[in-house]
Amino acid sequence: VELRVAVLGAGSWGTTVATLACRNTPTRLWSRRPEVAQEINEQHTNDRYLPRTPLPRALLATDSIEEAIRDADLVVLGVPCRGIRTTLEEVRKFLRPWVPIISLAKGLEVGTHLRVTEVIHDVIPDHPAGALTGPNLAREIMAGFAAASVVAIDDERVARQVQRVFHSGLFRVYTNHDVIGCELGGALKNVIAIASGMGDGLGVGDNTRAAVITRGLAEITHLGVAMGGDARTFAGLAGMGDLIATCVSPQSRNRFVGEQLGRGRTIDEITNEMHMVAEGVSTSRVVLDLAARHGVELPIAREVFGVVHEGATAQQAYRGLTRRMPGAETDVG
Amino acid sequence: VELRVAVLGAGSWGTTVATLACRNTPTRLWSRRPEVAQEINEQHTNDRYLPRTPLPRALLATDSIEEAIRDADLVVLGVPCRGIRTTLEEVRKFLRPWVPIISLAKGLEVGTHLRVTEVIHDVIPDHPAGALTGPNLAREIMAGFAAASVVAIDDERVARQVQRVFHSGLFRVYTNHDVIGCELGGALKNVIAIASGMGDGLGVGDNTRAAVITRGLAEITHLGVAMGGDARTFAGLAGMGDLIATCVSPQSRNRFVGEQLGRGRTIDEITNEMHMVAEGVSTSRVVLDLAARHGVELPIAREVFGVVHEGATAQQAYRGLTRRMPGAETDVG
Repeated sequence: VELRVAVLGAGSWGTTVATLACRNTPTRLWSRRPEVAQEINEQHTNDRYLPRTPLPRALLATDSIEEAIRDADLVVLGVPCRGIRTTLEEVRKFLRPWVPIISLAKGLEVGTHLRVTEVIHDVIPDHPAGALTGPNLAREIMAGFAAASVVAIDDERVARQVQRVFHSGLFRVYTNHDVIGCELGGALKNVIAIASGMGDGLGVGDNTRAAVITRGLAEITHLGVAMGGDARTFAGLAGMGDLIATCVSPQSRNRFVGEQLGRGRTIDEITNEMHMVAEGVSTSRVVLDLAARHGVELPIAREVFGVVHEGATAQQAYRGLTRRMPGAETDVG
Repeated sequence: VELRVAVLGAGSWGTTVATLACRNTPTRLWSRRPEVAQEINEQHTNDRYLPRTPLPRALLATDSIEEAIRDADLVVLGVPCRGIRTTLEEVRKFLRPWVPIISLAKGLEVGTHLRVTEVIHDVIPDHPAGALTGPNLAREIMAGFAAASVVAIDDERVARQVQRVFHSGLFRVYTNHDVIGCELGGALKNVIAIASGMGDGLGVGDNTRAAVITRGLAEITHLGVAMGGDARTFAGLAGMGDLIATCVSPQSRNRFVGEQLGRGRTIDEITNEMHMVAEGVSTSRVVLDLAARHGVELPIAREVFGVVHEGATAQQAYRGLTRRMPGAETDVG
């Protein structure tokens, strides 16, 4: 029996994941905007989010969430964190029993501080919830480059089926039962990517960038383990792998936001111009609350928060960072 | 009392480290070539290794190893691995008692499989031996960019004095008593940098590059811990930090060798044209012997060895790699 997939949200990553799934199984992509659904069905493109990229003819889109959900055997959430709860309220009306929900968002819910699978359980209890995460820049995958990814879900039988939905020769999917670690790795790396991007904008060089990424992973691991994640997850694709791809790729949005901050622009100027969401901006606020709650020190996230939410400059942030950065090595001179 | 430093080897990194030291304390730089010593003393440049870079007038050079060593209170070895043993035979003739020897080389001795501090102890027993290591691209430091570095030495009092020799506002030096881990981190990352560079040459993209670096650090840590290193060292500046800087910077020699291999050139063509040593080439041979001895699997290092020493192509290596790469995540589909 074929497993029918609904992907909700036709942004660049949602559209890419729907493209991967539709090679293996019937897939329906939902867009809130009728004109986007129509473009995908008739032109087989999604020009706003994936310019100059032909989509497979087998990929069908709809602007009706009921149509997308009522026959789906697997729901993939491709909307940004801030839209997830309201989208789930809609999903709940049409969702069939047992159907697992997989999130693509790499962030945390503002206000509740919940991970996305926790939000899913909150709105739609008793359905398996997981995440697809890892070093996966959408445009590279659409261009046919190889990539590896991780399905994080605690039920092994569900994990293996979900793996088969997305897996291919060029998109290798691994499973990991550490849902907490995988989700936190994805969410927290966006905050570090803003820090790394600020360095790019300031022109601090590769030595310092490498040090920031290294200390950034230590912060992610520190908070992640305190919150119940497995240290090995943060050393894997969903932690270090995703962090490196995001910090070094020109295509990363969160890195881009940081770079613009490093060049002296304000966060409002930058986000007003972008038509995609950089999750690290709101996640930086949640992360500091979580760090306080768990008694963990996160100097890099603290500096990012200062720039993004308190009006500090990137230069001030880096002055603070280079003063206190390393911690793995002891005895600063 | 001032601590007088002798830096042996006037390559790009030896000259850079001598420049850092001479800001804090009297420093003598030894070059085997009289014309290089003369250029440094008279023109205050070292054009072959650091083009268009003015050197401080306080930095004095000599082509006499006796002159460099006889008054030195600290000896810094800036020669490549393959020259270290013969250089140490010379050093031994003039070295005063107690004087510590710090190595800058990031490799292992071919034949003996020894780390550099082990070679030091082998030739000159009973002197403290350590390493200066971390994400330190020479040209960035000479250009005045900030960087962080690690002094690895097991004697804490010596470590603190050595730290003071190199430390400055822009070059922050931390100490780490895990000499084994710091040396192995520096040596093994050069092999992974060749792999990462091969991917650049083949054009595999940022997703795959991030996966290779991530799995590369897992290999380094796996072998490093089996050889007695501390896992935390590999997660720090001397491990992950140095690895990232080397894998992403256009300035890294080992990454450059890999990139050229990825473009289809042979290792002999590439190394014949370079006037600097890429330690990863010979280290890849030593690493595989050590992996066999310690019963550790190193798929990336194995593929690098195949390309560098057995005539495999970079394309074949990447085909092998993408088939077996992840291991932190279980259950490949």
